[in-house]
Amino acid sequence: MDNLRFLMYEVHDTTSLATNPQYAEYTRETSDMMLDAAKQLADSMLFPYFEEVDRYGSKYKDGTIQVHPIINKFMKAAGEGGWIGAAAPTELGGMQMPSSLFNAVNFLMGAANNSMIGYTGLTGGAAKLIYSFGTKEQQEKYIPKMFSGDWQGTMALTEPQAGSSLSDLTTSAKLMDDGSYRIKGQKIFISSGDYSGVENVVHLMLARIEGAPAGSKGISLFIVPKHRVSDDGSLTPNDVTTAGAFSKMGQCGYATSHLIMGEKDDCHGWLVGTENRGLRHMFQMMNGARISVGLTGASIASAAYYASLQYANERPQGRRITNRDLNKPQSLIIEHADVRRMLMLQKAIMEGSLSLLMECTMLHDRLQISDNEEEKEDLDLLLELLTPIAKTYPSEDGARAVSNGLQIFGGYGFCKDFPLEQLYRDIRICPLYEGTTGIQSMDLLGRKVTASNGKALMLLAAQIQKEVQEAMNYDELKPYAKRLMQEGQNLQEVTQHLVGMAMQGDTEGFLADANLYMELFSTNIMAWQWLKQANAAKRALLTENPQGDRLKMLEGKILSLKFYYKYELPKTLAWSATLKDNAEQLTIAKEEEVLC
Amino acid sequence: MDNLRFLMYEVHDTTSLATNPQYAEYTRETSDMMLDAAKQLADSMLFPYFEEVDRYGSKYKDGTIQVHPIINKFMKAAGEGGWIGAAAPTELGGMQMPSSLFNAVNFLMGAANNSMIGYTGLTGGAAKLIYSFGTKEQQEKYIPKMFSGDWQGTMALTEPQAGSSLSDLTTSAKLMDDGSYRIKGQKIFISSGDYSGVENVVHLMLARIEGAPAGSKGISLFIVPKHRVSDDGSLTPNDVTTAGAFSKMGQCGYATSHLIMGEKDDCHGWLVGTENRGLRHMFQMMNGARISVGLTGASIASAAYYASLQYANERPQGRRITNRDLNKPQSLIIEHADVRRMLMLQKAIMEGSLSLLMECTMLHDRLQISDNEEEKEDLDLLLELLTPIAKTYPSEDGARAVSNGLQIFGGYGFCKDFPLEQLYRDIRICPLYEGTTGIQSMDLLGRKVTASNGKALMLLAAQIQKEVQEAMNYDELKPYAKRLMQEGQNLQEVTQHLVGMAMQGDTEGFLADANLYMELFSTNIMAWQWLKQANAAKRALLTENPQGDRLKMLEGKILSLKFYYKYELPKTLAWSATLKDNAEQLTIAKEEEVLC
Repeated sequence: MDNLRFLMYEVHDTTSLATNPQYAEYTRETSDMMLDAAKQLADSMLFPYFEEVDRYGSKYKDGTIQVHPIINKFMKAAGEGGWIGAAAPTELGGMQMPSSLFNAVNFLMGAANNSMIGYTGLTGGAAKLIYSFGTKEQQEKYIPKMFSGDWQGTMALTEPQAGSSLSDLTTSAKLMDDGSYRIKGQKIFISSGDYSGVENVVHLMLARIEGAPAGSKGISLFIVPKHRVSDDGSLTPNDVTTAGAFSKMGQCGYATSHLIMGEKDDCHGWLVGTENRGLRHMFQMMNGARISVGLTGASIASAAYYASLQYANERPQGRRITNRDLNKPQSLIIEHADVRRMLMLQKAIMEGSLSLLMECTMLHDRLQISDNEEEKEDLDLLLELLTPIAKTYPSEDGARAVSNGLQIFGGYGFCKDFPLEQLYRDIRICPLYEGTTGIQSMDLLGRKVTASNGKALMLLAAQIQKEVQEAMNYDELKPYAKRLMQEGQNLQEVTQHLVGMAMQGDTEGFLADANLYMELFSTNIMAWQWLKQANAAKRALLTENPQGDRLKMLEGKILSLKFYYKYELPKTLAWSATLKDNAEQLTIAKEEEVLC
Repeated sequence: MDNLRFLMYEVHDTTSLATNPQYAEYTRETSDMMLDAAKQLADSMLFPYFEEVDRYGSKYKDGTIQVHPIINKFMKAAGEGGWIGAAAPTELGGMQMPSSLFNAVNFLMGAANNSMIGYTGLTGGAAKLIYSFGTKEQQEKYIPKMFSGDWQGTMALTEPQAGSSLSDLTTSAKLMDDGSYRIKGQKIFISSGDYSGVENVVHLMLARIEGAPAGSKGISLFIVPKHRVSDDGSLTPNDVTTAGAFSKMGQCGYATSHLIMGEKDDCHGWLVGTENRGLRHMFQMMNGARISVGLTGASIASAAYYASLQYANERPQGRRITNRDLNKPQSLIIEHADVRRMLMLQKAIMEGSLSLLMECTMLHDRLQISDNEEEKEDLDLLLELLTPIAKTYPSEDGARAVSNGLQIFGGYGFCKDFPLEQLYRDIRICPLYEGTTGIQSMDLLGRKVTASNGKALMLLAAQIQKEVQEAMNYDELKPYAKRLMQEGQNLQEVTQHLVGMAMQGDTEGFLADANLYMELFSTNIMAWQWLKQANAAKRALLTENPQGDRLKMLEGKILSLKFYYKYELPKTLAWSATLKDNAEQLTIAKEEEVLC
């Protein structure tokens, strides 16, 4: 909690939003209250079921997916607490909460139980699509029941033949005389797509209207409920069949369904927004969903870090090298350098990730309240640039962090007696869903870096420069500020090298190692976020006279900065070397296949 | 199979051992026969149960651990086929098989089912301790039943308070008038320590004889059977209680027990070898066990590689960048550069690991047959140096390889419909058991590198030099040979830097980043193994006129060499930078704890 508040109030100044009428309510006091309330809910309804919900699983039975009954209770409680629609405008029954605060809340809840908050998170996201693009009638029909936790919302994109390649989706929609559509097709991997005890499920579904153009330009967005809603509120089955549940390695309590629509030609759907613009509309939700996945990664990594820190502080094993006396009791493992390295690595990844996610949500919030078109464009460009990184780094390096946490437990880490094995299974989904790491990396290099002639990169450089300038004032941080500047120049060089390939027409070579470019880029971003955190810590250390836990926390921030720059940042040397070496493009398919 | 044979016969010349009487039987023909027989057993009894054994699990019930009945059948079949005692001398009922061949056999079987071969592997290893250090009577009493697969063998080291720190074990042994001992204590994490359907379990157990010195110098080795064996062969319960089974993330079909000895003061044990030399005796088995863990890692990574290669060759998704025509069918994912990179990475890690493991087993075999003391010492030093790497690299990077394999499956990789999620869970034990990566790394830097004044490093350098010299003859390989020489110099520099710290008395600083040194060192070792494989491929390409699959395989080796040097080797830049930077030792515990 201390770390979360430090990041919010001291690093990212989230309460500055309260100067705007839209977020006026969210002063520091209100924000603190919200965090406390969220923590209470997490402590009482989420964390105690972390294991149980996993062991119960989500099995297909009698045409639906059986999940632990706490899911229904939590949905109701979250609805009552206002958490599902918290970010929505007050006139729609929301709390108009800034996303920076809302995501802090979700981080807390996710650390307690990353499977369960999927249900509420998706419902809120699906409702947002309806209130952003739906008709007033649609809003009135669906949103209140979604916000109350009675109805579940989903995003239904993936099909068996169309995963990463959404352009290839084939679910069809046929216009009827009453203005509704008849939907026919299959969707897979639909999170919370159906489960025991839920009254209705509102799918925000992509489908292709008959006669629409091929590819992404012929995709439209529909509301396809599990049960149709009559004007009197009664429910009629809508020919959406749950054909099965995916049995997964992790997030086992999170129902993932296989849906078949229109087996009886009676699946009704209603267009949301504009015909053939469905993918664009959906992207509004997907960008939010990407941030959410990053947040899930960070929250799982956070649960792993604190669990392993506690274990390291309690478990005696072996003796510190400087004291090998066998007649003395064993040392706590936190005294071993290698264990400390693994703890520091986790902390650097997790807190750095959270800081980046907060950077993104603040950009989002400022975008909502800005009335200056130029500023809006800048905020949007920067947010778009950072989004694939905010999805990928906490997912990929979060998984690495959790693995290091597991290692600290030794053999126990592999056993179900401790939470680490579950966290290790759970987080592995993050690099996969809402666009794999490969897709995010191509998005970063192929779209975001080159957008508006590279303007986003310049805006980023300015942000970094700001932190460098402040850090130059503190002797202890100066060397790190200089390092970050050098790293920025190196990133620029690598970028120019790659863009040069694209300009010479070698688009395949340009994007072939996008994944490594993502690693290089995100490591730079983390280095920036760590300098930003260290600056905030320095400010506090120089103006307060901190003691106790507060002092530890602030000094810990400076230590993590140093750790990141010593242990992680040098990896840019390796990625740069590989990315600049294009003497031979080894990964590009040739006519003669030799991979065997 | 082609790759395995290439590594055995062409890279490591395993049949050269047949010139020695001890291994005279193992010509290429016999070796091929053995591989074929092993593959047949793997195809019929192991691979078909890969999933089933995992889902069945290993649950504690009625005082024992329930496992899938195929385990008992496999033990018998392996016994009949002679696989359990294959490496033992013929006079003991073994086949006197060189370990290089035996490990190739185990690699095949492990790729088919890594949990099941644990049972046979441990039985063979435990028997080896008995025939290396036990009395003739002990040998006659236990070994035949173990080799036949009727009785299970284990190694019982770990205790709740003594995991990595074996010096702290407290299980006690009290000498009785009849020369046997009474054992009292607890052991945890005992693989195959008890399970349904097994007639007897022979624990090779470490315990402390009453009055023995503290620490590792007071530990002795005992045979502690589940049932005592009378002279007429009848069995009596030996007061070894199975108190529970560990519920694990992976290798779920491999029973892991918690044992309590001597609750009724009636647990008999018999000393094996010399009093207080138990840890030394056990290390003979542990070195073999470390190679086995490396082999498990490599075999799991191999199963993952071939599964993901097959999927990539069958799954259409998206379109190759050079052909975005939406009216054409989707491309196979193997055509995408990022998928190819993940496949090549897996292949480079897996085949490189297997090559290193074969290097080690050949050193072991040559050590067995050498009659030259100086040569023996050299072989031993080199084997000791490489063993922690052969355990760690295939475990750590094997897990990374499997994760890349899983990623190729997209969302399906996270689901139980495909084997990747299980392989991902299974391999995670490898960096933990038989000494964690942290322990192996300290062993490498703290003991092996500095042993005999660094002689092992010189012997290694000579081996590397040999490959470099050959590679300098092939224009295509020359640049890689030069790179490897430079890397060797760099490794030397880093080593001197670290050893310098130790010489100045900073032993804690010297070992603090042993883990990173392991990464640096093992990457050099892999680069050497890849040059060695490429040399062998070049020899074949230049002397044969290879076609079809043979040509693909040989060209694939050169491609993997290039891939490793472009994508993996540059990482040495990062580790070297970190290891040389000791301006501040961040991971060494200070009085004031700031990790929070």
